Amino acid sequence: MTAPLAPHLVDELVRRTLAEDLGLAGDVTTDAAIAAQARGVGEIVARQAGTVAGLTVALAVFPVLDGGVTISPEVADGDPVAAGTLLARVQGPTRALLTGERAALNLLGHASGIATATRAVVDAVAGTGARIIDTRKTSPGLRALEKHAVRCGGGHNHRFGLFDAVMLKDNHLVAAGGIHPAVAAVRAQVGHTVHVEVEVDDLEQVHEALAAGADSILLDNLGDDELRGAVELVAGRAITEASGGISPDRAAAVARTGVDVISLGWLTHSAPRLDVALDLQG
Amino acid sequence: MTAPLAPHLVDELVRRTLAEDLGLAGDVTTDAAIAAQARGVGEIVARQAGTVAGLTVALAVFPVLDGGVTISPEVADGDPVAAGTLLARVQGPTRALLTGERAALNLLGHASGIATATRAVVDAVAGTGARIIDTRKTSPGLRALEKHAVRCGGGHNHRFGLFDAVMLKDNHLVAAGGIHPAVAAVRAQVGHTVHVEVEVDDLEQVHEALAAGADSILLDNLGDDELRGAVELVAGRAITEASGGISPDRAAAVARTGVDVISLGWLTHSAPRLDVALDLQG
Amino acid sequence: MTAPLAPHLVDELVRRTLAEDLGLAGDVTTDAAIAAQARGVGEIVARQAGTVAGLTVALAVFPVLDGGVTISPEVADGDPVAAGTLLARVQGPTRALLTGERAALNLLGHASGIATATRAVVDAVAGTGARIIDTRKTSPGLRALEKHAVRCGGGHNHRFGLFDAVMLKDNHLVAAGGIHPAVAAVRAQVGHTVHVEVEVDDLEQVHEALAAGADSILLDNLGDDELRGAVELVAGRAITEASGGISPDRAAAVARTGVDVISLGWLTHSAPRLDVALDLQG
Amino acid sequence: MTAPLAPHLVDELVRRTLAEDLGLAGDVTTDAAIAAQARGVGEIVARQAGTVAGLTVALAVFPVLDGGVTISPEVADGDPVAAGTLLARVQGPTRALLTGERAALNLLGHASGIATATRAVVDAVAGTGARIIDTRKTSPGLRALEKHAVRCGGGHNHRFGLFDAVMLKDNHLVAAGGIHPAVAAVRAQVGHTVHVEVEVDDLEQVHEALAAGADSILLDNLGDDELRGAVELVAGRAITEASGGISPDRAAAVARTGVDVISLGWLTHSAPRLDVALDLQG
Amino acid sequence: MTAPLAPHLVDELVRRTLAEDLGLAGDVTTDAAIAAQARGVGEIVARQAGTVAGLTVALAVFPVLDGGVTISPEVADGDPVAAGTLLARVQGPTRALLTGERAALNLLGHASGIATATRAVVDAVAGTGARIIDTRKTSPGLRALEKHAVRCGGGHNHRFGLFDAVMLKDNHLVAAGGIHPAVAAVRAQVGHTVHVEVEVDDLEQVHEALAAGADSILLDNLGDDELRGAVELVAGRAITEASGGISPDRAAAVARTGVDVISLGWLTHSAPRLDVALDLQG
Amino acid sequence: MTAPLAPHLVDELVRRTLAEDLGLAGDVTTDAAIAAQARGVGEIVARQAGTVAGLTVALAVFPVLDGGVTISPEVADGDPVAAGTLLARVQGPTRALLTGERAALNLLGHASGIATATRAVVDAVAGTGARIIDTRKTSPGLRALEKHAVRCGGGHNHRFGLFDAVMLKDNHLVAAGGIHPAVAAVRAQVGHTVHVEVEVDDLEQVHEALAAGADSILLDNLGDDELRGAVELVAGRAITEASGGISPDRAAAVARTGVDVISLGWLTHSAPRLDVALDLQG
Repeated sequence: MTAPLAPHLVDELVRRTLAEDLGLAGDVTTDAAIAAQARGVGEIVARQAGTVAGLTVALAVFPVLDGGVTISPEVADGDPVAAGTLLARVQGPTRALLTGERAALNLLGHASGIATATRAVVDAVAGTGARIIDTRKTSPGLRALEKHAVRCGGGHNHRFGLFDAVMLKDNHLVAAGGIHPAVAAVRAQVGHTVHVEVEVDDLEQVHEALAAGADSILLDNLGDDELRGAVELVAGRAITEASGGISPDRAAAVARTGVDVISLGWLTHSAPRLDVALDLQG
Repeated sequence: MTAPLAPHLVDELVRRTLAEDLGLAGDVTTDAAIAAQARGVGEIVARQAGTVAGLTVALAVFPVLDGGVTISPEVADGDPVAAGTLLARVQGPTRALLTGERAALNLLGHASGIATATRAVVDAVAGTGARIIDTRKTSPGLRALEKHAVRCGGGHNHRFGLFDAVMLKDNHLVAAGGIHPAVAAVRAQVGHTVHVEVEVDDLEQVHEALAAGADSILLDNLGDDELRGAVELVAGRAITEASGGISPDRAAAVARTGVDVISLGWLTHSAPRLDVALDLQG
Repeated sequence: MTAPLAPHLVDELVRRTLAEDLGLAGDVTTDAAIAAQARGVGEIVARQAGTVAGLTVALAVFPVLDGGVTISPEVADGDPVAAGTLLARVQGPTRALLTGERAALNLLGHASGIATATRAVVDAVAGTGARIIDTRKTSPGLRALEKHAVRCGGGHNHRFGLFDAVMLKDNHLVAAGGIHPAVAAVRAQVGHTVHVEVEVDDLEQVHEALAAGADSILLDNLGDDELRGAVELVAGRAITEASGGISPDRAAAVARTGVDVISLGWLTHSAPRLDVALDLQG
Repeated sequence: MTAPLAPHLVDELVRRTLAEDLGLAGDVTTDAAIAAQARGVGEIVARQAGTVAGLTVALAVFPVLDGGVTISPEVADGDPVAAGTLLARVQGPTRALLTGERAALNLLGHASGIATATRAVVDAVAGTGARIIDTRKTSPGLRALEKHAVRCGGGHNHRFGLFDAVMLKDNHLVAAGGIHPAVAAVRAQVGHTVHVEVEVDDLEQVHEALAAGADSILLDNLGDDELRGAVELVAGRAITEASGGISPDRAAAVARTGVDVISLGWLTHSAPRLDVALDLQG
Repeated sequence: MTAPLAPHLVDELVRRTLAEDLGLAGDVTTDAAIAAQARGVGEIVARQAGTVAGLTVALAVFPVLDGGVTISPEVADGDPVAAGTLLARVQGPTRALLTGERAALNLLGHASGIATATRAVVDAVAGTGARIIDTRKTSPGLRALEKHAVRCGGGHNHRFGLFDAVMLKDNHLVAAGGIHPAVAAVRAQVGHTVHVEVEVDDLEQVHEALAAGADSILLDNLGDDELRGAVELVAGRAITEASGGISPDRAAAVARTGVDVISLGWLTHSAPRLDVALDLQG
Repeated sequence: MTAPLAPHLVDELVRRTLAEDLGLAGDVTTDAAIAAQARGVGEIVARQAGTVAGLTVALAVFPVLDGGVTISPEVADGDPVAAGTLLARVQGPTRALLTGERAALNLLGHASGIATATRAVVDAVAGTGARIIDTRKTSPGLRALEKHAVRCGGGHNHRFGLFDAVMLKDNHLVAAGGIHPAVAAVRAQVGHTVHVEVEVDDLEQVHEALAAGADSILLDNLGDDELRGAVELVAGRAITEASGGISPDRAAAVARTGVDVISLGWLTHSAPRLDVALDLQG
């Protein structure tokens, strides 16, 4: 059961996507070639195997175009599907089905591509206890949808923005005079529900971060042996995150080092789209 | 000289990207760990070779955060760059540099990834006369940026939406009773500046589309021999577009068939991000 | 069958119009003088003969004010109506009918005025083969509605903005070094679906535009004889547009010169409103 | 000295106008045909005699497009100008001058058309003491600009919307049980700064409205003799407004009846645009 | 029967309030802990005695979150309620009830606090003929809701903004050269429905304001005896407003001086929230 | 050094506040009574002692109205000030100073009222180690400003919304089958940076929450002895929060029980405004 996108975000995504595709003149092809009274049924299908995400927002496109369209999902966000699977039926005025097709598929294909990529990595680390998480390397304006897609793929979310958790990176540590004063400064200012994570480059810094009371430690660009050493050193006193250019292929090896979470920017910034289509029936 | 993004789009992209990352609480890490009066210089660099796109919009992030930041581009959108190339300098309050880093890099990396992928395909077809073009398979809300990136990579744009050209696909043709009545219907309704393209599946339909007076003919999922046959048949009386699951690898072979334009959805929906970073100096 | 306004534009127009009229305090007269439970029927009628446009968007005002209002159009956009014709009935809470009256009539009267003016000119050129088209001389923020109204009046649309077709005017030609290099420059950059029109002042330039491969030629401020000469010269190799201060009265004479399209800014910037009213029945 | 448009309205009008004209692709003609570094001077001139309005908002278009444009008004809103008068100079990147031209002229021409029409009627009633005022019959989304234009033409504004004054019309009076209870109901509810105007059809109702304590009385569709009678009857105890299909030609006769204000919907809904142009110098 | 909030304002308030509370990630607690199919009934109750305001907008929160929620108000805006009174029932998916709880209660508690405070002062001056009115000292972005709440409490509204009535304060009077020229200047410019109020500090100025033809006179920071003197002096020729730091406790004494209206900024800027809660039934 | 409001929030607050006050007609008083060329200096002063908040956003009002206004803060957000203290000077066109006055003061007075109330409670618990924190009981649309004001008063922020921390309340616990399964459910779903707080009513539940691994425990409506007992029981293994109708007066006693944080809804929903004014100098 994956947490849904909030309704105001669904609404905003649908409107932004449609406004971009319809402009001021609308769908000049369909308005000229298809009679207003024509009715049809569209089947949204997966052309590739994958994991579904964004189906709710994609289907929400059609009733905005015409209140007379009925939408019937056949699967749910988070479901794995084989190539050829029927994902949903949309039924109503043919014009709305054709006009909304690309907007809906762009939302669905983008999100499902991320979910599919995430699911592959999550499966690759199955049994290790490591969680696969995303980053803030998302497409501008699509962060909520993309992080939802990661959840649909069995992944978890890192912080959503600069506002909901502290991440002390190298520049912050230098400016604040080291890990200890940096953690102290943020603890003094931020609320008690704000998690504090510290990015470290070596085991020496892991020691410092632990001593400073970090909630999580981001192990940046460490090799597998170093990761294993860090996990031993931390010994459950903080959450350990492996990060830094970890390709999907390497994730399983990293997971076996015992780290708690593994973050991959690739999931949201470079996962290829899942091939989905809308087949119109008469 | 690539056509720039319109200023109201730059402004909207920057604000949307920042709002998403800052939320209501802002950058809780930087506000706590970095002194308001600290100043620094950031260097935006390419970690990979590629083609730059989105630099203008990425740099526009910083002055929105703090009017005291100076931005100095070292390259321009459309420029090819080697790994390690300095793309721009940003100078001013350290807080603004750190807070804007991810927003700027997400814009720049996303657009440059598309430009880089486009450039590779454009180079692959060099000498053939074929143009590489994009599709409407873009990321929701990012179509203008992504189509700008395609131009930066040496590609050209297909229509921007449903509003600025007619594309008669199979469903339209069936509903309208064939190619001839479909083209007639749209010609009767749309303005004289609206281009009419017809999607066809075989040479028989190419004949019909030509007879109906199509401006362009989209040759959907044809093999190279069929494409060559279509080009001969058309003989310059319409623009020929090859489309349908054309991978970057296959583009050169397709180009040699003599088609005028080759469209690849992959450029905008699945091109991986270009790796860019901001290095903060003192 | 006229292409409708896209639903997101209907929604936006209704909300903008109502927000402007209701402000923060709402309809202080109606809220004080009319009981909340009062019900009524309003009849929207044409006080003058004309052509209807904007009825859909006008009626959409009422359900936004109160979900309990039922709207029943009696005619459709594009229909010619005599003075006194009932255009629609709106039924429900009297408050909503009175509060929405002016917003609805302003939308309907403005669009129908343009449709009526267009229809008169379209009728005047009937039989000549010339199309009557609009320009970009529209009321700020109302372009989509106004161009829709032109279509309702039997006219056609010129380009919607700077984005969907090329129009090379005198300044562009001078800056680019003449018609040929100007057309070449835009062809090199714009997509294959972008129509290229060149504005010319004399027959010499018509020659050049044809040679340069313009898709359309705008004949600016030419007399009828010159227009006839240009049409002969072009001989179907490009679309010919007569433009420049053509009054509705002169359109028929211009049409008889054989030009393909005649553009009149007057249709959208100066057509008087059609007189429409809402009569409330007990 | 005419009250200016509030700055947030200027900003919103400019952005809405530009967004409509530029879409996602921007000015494809200018971006392709004009070099980015080209500089020029544009002269905005009146092609017809008239009264200027909207110059501030029209000029504000250019710096939004390019911060390097300098704007230099030569006249001010409210100034009468002869045909050929230079209204303003705009200087800077040629691209911005060409791209902003139509947006600026649409704003300026529309507002100046209203100001010019208003000025003609105001001049026609000069010496009578009657004020020429507008109505709520404005173009959707342009009410603030259009009412500003009326002020520029020497006219005055009626209420801006349903929110800032009470206007009891026939339907309100019937529903409330007559003029007296209707006025009583609104006085009981609205604030002490809210003006109460009552619309009447005959002298009998004028009596009632006076007795009920109306601040103003709208004399709807009365002949000149009736208007004179009403003015005598009111004798300064309320403001008298003549309204209802008063053409500009009839205004002077109406003014001589002694009414205080004369409202003309025509000023805002049907005044033709003033012909203005931008001449680009080298 | 209190005038309602206009529907577009209800919609905007609900969306702004929800967007602020849900952000990009939504209600992470409820989405994880409550099953999507769980249903429940929520009872919104007053924990304190008071006067209700904002119930309509508060209830509108829930259907926006989930179309399956049914809302059933038990009282209406403006009703006095005892502690423990059931104000409304909301029934449907438990997730929507929990997620919307705080947004709804913040709207309801804020508005009802103002209505309750207003009602107390209105009751305190009962029988005197004085009206209790608000000011422009409202919470940014909440003016329409707060002024609605004042009406719900039996108070009346002063002007809504700088746009709907003239208020000449000390600085205006000095700049314009005194009361008489100031009133003359505004009368010359503003429309005939615009009320003119003059702020005065002593009886001398009351004389001047009357002579200048002010519609209302704001008696700023006068003692009770001075107020009485001013009321006598005015003798019904203008509306008298007592203003300036009048605490709720002092209102009754001020009312007995005979002034027409008493304005209290406290009502909207400092009234404490009414304690309201949502009790969820299984 | 208090964390500032993000610039996009400052901008949005200023525009929303001005739009509300200026409407379509603008400041009709000032535009008529004050010459456009008049210049002046305004001094923003505290009429009461208190703590400043919102000065940056308040001052930002003026340059939006007129780019010629210079703003000069004399104190900073978070500073304690005596009655009569000069907070800032604003200098420039008199119209802008008068038009912006109320918008600026409403922002400043509202935020400073909250900061002042917070500071009083923070001072009252000085030396105990307890932090004073806010809640989500904020004014709709003003949460970021109000939580900023709490920080300015020396308080800390609780979560900003439903999105940035888990808070398991009674209804969640019942629905999930108890504290243990509820915490397990959320831990399984939410990211590793999401803090989990559990609301408890008695010591028995404190035991359970600790066993379940809660990060924080909200002790709801407990007496001082119970609070002390809970603190002992927790013994540093989780953060303890006292909550539930804690008045500012009772805060010190609660703080002495040893709880880590004390949350007061009163700070943001009922703190009275700080009295601030703008004195205009010639």
